[in-house]
Formats: sequence, C-alpha cells, structure tokens
Amino acid sequence: MLRDVTVSEVGPRDGLQMVRKVVPTADKRRLISALHAAGLPEIEVASFVPPKLVPQMADAAEVTRFAAALPGLHVAVLVPNLRGAEAAVAAGAHKITLTLSVSEAHSQANLRRSRTEQMEEARAVTTWLRSLPPDARPRLEAGLSTAFGCSLQGEVPEAEVVGMAVELARMGCDSVGLSDTAGYANPAQLRRLLRLVRAEIGQACDSLHLHDTMGLGMANVTVGVEEGIRIFDGALGGLGGCPFAPGASGNIVTEDLVFLLESLGLRTGIDLDALLAARAILAEALPGEPLHGAYARAGRPTGWRAAA
Amino acid sequence: MLRDVTVSEVGPRDGLQMVRKVVPTADKRRLISALHAAGLPEIEVASFVPPKLVPQMADAAEVTRFAAALPGLHVAVLVPNLRGAEAAVAAGAHKITLTLSVSEAHSQANLRRSRTEQMEEARAVTTWLRSLPPDARPRLEAGLSTAFGCSLQGEVPEAEVVGMAVELARMGCDSVGLSDTAGYANPAQLRRLLRLVRAEIGQACDSLHLHDTMGLGMANVTVGVEEGIRIFDGALGGLGGCPFAPGASGNIVTEDLVFLLESLGLRTGIDLDALLAARAILAEALPGEPLHGAYARAGRPTGWRAAA
Repeated sequence: MLRDVTVSEVGPRDGLQMVRKVVPTADKRRLISALHAAGLPEIEVASFVPPKLVPQMADAAEVTRFAAALPGLHVAVLVPNLRGAEAAVAAGAHKITLTLSVSEAHSQANLRRSRTEQMEEARAVTTWLRSLPPDARPRLEAGLSTAFGCSLQGEVPEAEVVGMAVELARMGCDSVGLSDTAGYANPAQLRRLLRLVRAEIGQACDSLHLHDTMGLGMANVTVGVEEGIRIFDGALGGLGGCPFAPGASGNIVTEDLVFLLESLGLRTGIDLDALLAARAILAEALPGEPLHGAYARAGRPTGWRAAA
Repeated sequence: MLRDVTVSEVGPRDGLQMVRKVVPTADKRRLISALHAAGLPEIEVASFVPPKLVPQMADAAEVTRFAAALPGLHVAVLVPNLRGAEAAVAAGAHKITLTLSVSEAHSQANLRRSRTEQMEEARAVTTWLRSLPPDARPRLEAGLSTAFGCSLQGEVPEAEVVGMAVELARMGCDSVGLSDTAGYANPAQLRRLLRLVRAEIGQACDSLHLHDTMGLGMANVTVGVEEGIRIFDGALGGLGGCPFAPGASGNIVTEDLVFLLESLGLRTGIDLDALLAARAILAEALPGEPLHGAYARAGRPTGWRAAA
C-alpha cells in the first residue's frame, strides 16, 4: 500500500492508560488486531512504566510481543527511562519514544525528575542502544512533552524547546517529536516552533503528537502538513490525556485525522470503514467511556473520495 | 475597540431557526443584548422568511428593530427574496444576506427555486436597493450556499461557484460570501476556491460561513485567515445547520472561533468571559439542547493572553 503520510495510533497506550478501567490483555489484542487490519502502519501499543504507578500497562511486554508478530506493523512504545527501554527492546518494540518534558513543572510531576536529570537518562538510553547490534536496535524518538505550553506552568519558552531538541539530536536520538501535551498549541505557534526547531535539526524533527483540548487539533495538523510533517499521532475515539496535565483532553481523533489527511490528498493506507470497526471494538471494551470524533458521527460526505 | 477581524454571530438566526422550540422574543432580546455586551460587532438576528415555513422567525421584524437600537451594533439578516429584503429594510437591518445555492439540488430543496430563478431574484433585489436613497440602503451580501459541496448532490463544481460570484458582483452585490452549508470543506479546497473566486472579484469575496460537520471548521478558519479573510460567521454553542442539508451539523462555535483568532494575534473586540455569559443565557433559553465547543469545556489555557 502506497503511503504519503504515517498515522501512528497511540490509543492502546495514551488512550487506555487514561481510562479508569484496566482493559484486559485479550481486549487489547483484539483492538490492536483491528487497527492493524484497518491499515494502521504504526501503533504505540504500551508504555513500559512501573505497574504500581500505571496498572493499565502491567501487560506491556506481553502486548508488545503480540503486536510485534503482526505482519508489517511498526510497533512503538513509550518509555520514561533506561529500564523501560531495556524491557521494550526485550519485548521486540521497533520504535521507542523516550518522553521528556520541556516544562520543568511537568517534568517533576510526570517523571519525578528534573529536566536535567531526564536529559541524563536520555544519554544513558542512547549510549545503551549504541551498544546493541544494529539489527537489534529499535528507532529512538525523543518525545518533547509540553512543547507548546503547560497547564502547570503556562508558557514554555520556544528557545528551551529548540535547545533540548538540538541536544537530543546531537546525543544520537533518531528523531525528535513535538508533543502538545496540554493541547494548547495554535496554528501560528505550531508553524513558528516547527520552523525554529527544523532550522537547527532539520528532518530529525519529524512528528507531531497533538491533543484537542482547545478544539484546534485539525487546524494544527493542517499547518503541520503544510510545513512538511509526515508523521502524526492520533487516538481512536480521541481517548487519552495526561494525568499530570490538568485540563488536557484527549488526543486528536484518529478517524478525523485520517479523513483530513485523505481529503488533503495524502494517502494514509488506512481504510476508514475498517477503522470504524476498530472503534466499535474499543467502545465494547470501554462501556460508558465517551468516544469523540466528527467522522464517526457524521459519516462520509456525499461524493467524498479518499486520496488516490 | 480596535479590531483586526470581524466575528459575525449567526446564532439568533441560523441557530434558533434549527431548534425545534420557538424561542420567545423576550429570550432572543436577552441573548442579543448579551452578545452585544460581549463585544460582538455584527449579529445576524433573523431571517425574513414566511412564518408558515419557519415559525421560529415570525418575530423577525420585531427582533431586527430591537437590535438596530443597540448602540454600534451592525445588524445583519438573511433573506431569500425581494419580499424579505423589503421587510428587512423596513425593520432597519444594516446588512442583508441574500441566500443562493450553487447546488441546483439544494436550491430546489431550500428555496423552491432553480439557481437561474434565484439569480433573477438577486437582480430584482439589487435593482430595488439601488432605487433607495443611499442612507437608507443596507449592505447587500450574496451568500453562496453549498459552495464546498452538497449533501444532496455531492460535489459542487468550482467553476460554478466562480461563475455565480462573478455574476453577483457584476449585478451590484456589495460582497459575496462563501458558505460551507454541508460542512464538507477541507483546508486545501478552501484555499484553492478562495483564490479562484478572488482572482475574479478580489476583496468583494470577503467572508466565510463555515459549519463543523467533519470537525474541520477551525482548520478552515486558519486557512481563511492566511488567505486574508477577515469576516467569519460563528454561532454561540455551535448551534445551527440547515433543514435541507441532511447530515450537516452546527455552525463553527463562536467561542472557539474567537479563541483561535485571538490566539493567532487578531483582535476580535470580544470578551470571552462575557461570551460565556451569553452562552449561559442561550442554555437557559434552550433547555436540553446540546451546546458544543472546546473553549467552554476546557476554559482558558494557563497563561493564555488575548491579542493586544
């Protein structure tokens, strides 16, 4: 399947981590299988965090191993530290996103570490990964949380985002993603920050993780596309958030993201009908949990065609 | 109050026309007063249509007279024909939007007239308006419904939008607005069509009326701003739709529109707190009617500032 843009589904990680219920492993497998069947090229299936802190992710290794066996699927996971990275590699993850916060307040709340300490952790992860044989080495993405503002501290200086991105690229991260953890980004800010970061590290800044708190998710995607970004995270039904970003609401809705990208003429390789089937599985697994999204509500516009 | 962009509130017309309940005139007055107090520079307060067809608008003249007495408010109304235009002028409207559909199917369903017949009606309206003394003459906008697609007929050829816009500008309409009646527009399409129309009639194409059916309203506003549009319709709480555009959901949410524009550095002259007070009045007047919007749900981001 030809693809112009990569939609990375983070629902099984960012979504299921935020719901109160611990979703059984069997349901996660059904959901991941359905997403894979719908054509999602990459799925963030778990985060490798202490089960005491996040019981929803206690089965991270099992779920990762399951996903890694699905043909052609790029299996991504989130890790907060070296220990998580080691466990993720052991389970067969293809891409590891190490999370760091540009906001000091969010770093302390979410990671219980200062930004400086977390940069040291990033150095430990890159050093360890380099010690692995190349064919056992996953891609390492540094995920810069709160890059566009923080609900705890407010404004996040752009120079600090750029500074961290440069340092992380230099220490050997394969890519740096910008995360709008709080959902505060506006399109003008997004364009400006992308240009600032890419002026320093170029295409190594290659992905956006957006939330829809202020209803500007699709506007931000549009500007990201115009700026040349070709990897976007989304979550089925708009699940997700961050326990340490008060007021933040869910991720941008994968269904709406795919609809927008295809409408813009960018092939995602994803079948929207099959994506709605995956959404139905999610709804079954999470009774009572509100799912969001315009496409699921409105359906396909009369005469609409996917990108060809 | 200095303003970079005009937000035109269409809730009292497009919103209240679509709810089942007939909102009492006294409630409409309270709502319009609250919107005026929040700094809305223009409000579309009514449509001058036969009360038998749209009982919600039976008090159009009374509401228009009331609004025209509010200091500094630009009072807009919708009309389908010359008879409506005459009644609107008698009631003191400052701006008349004559609605025409680019989709033949929508023209027949919504206006019970062919596009050709409605163009003749437009000619009758412009001719009559020219016969009025200049100080008694309101601005005339031609509102091109279904400019971006139609839920009845599907695709609407761009050449037909351009053709109608040119003819309407030539016959003496002061401006031509593009309406995404079905909520089908995507940002790339919007940019393309705006450029095509403005290549022919320039700044006479000056406003956008957008719906949020597919969740792309704010993305479309963003591109409209980039293309130089400085008049945007919105409806408080995202009310609205079109009885003859099946599947269309509400207008873009005024609260979110104002938040986006201010975030982009464009002064609207509108106070967001006061706008939420108007929303509360609307909620009281329409118990049980779902109101939409991210800003009302999420509140102001930590550290956020309006444009200065």
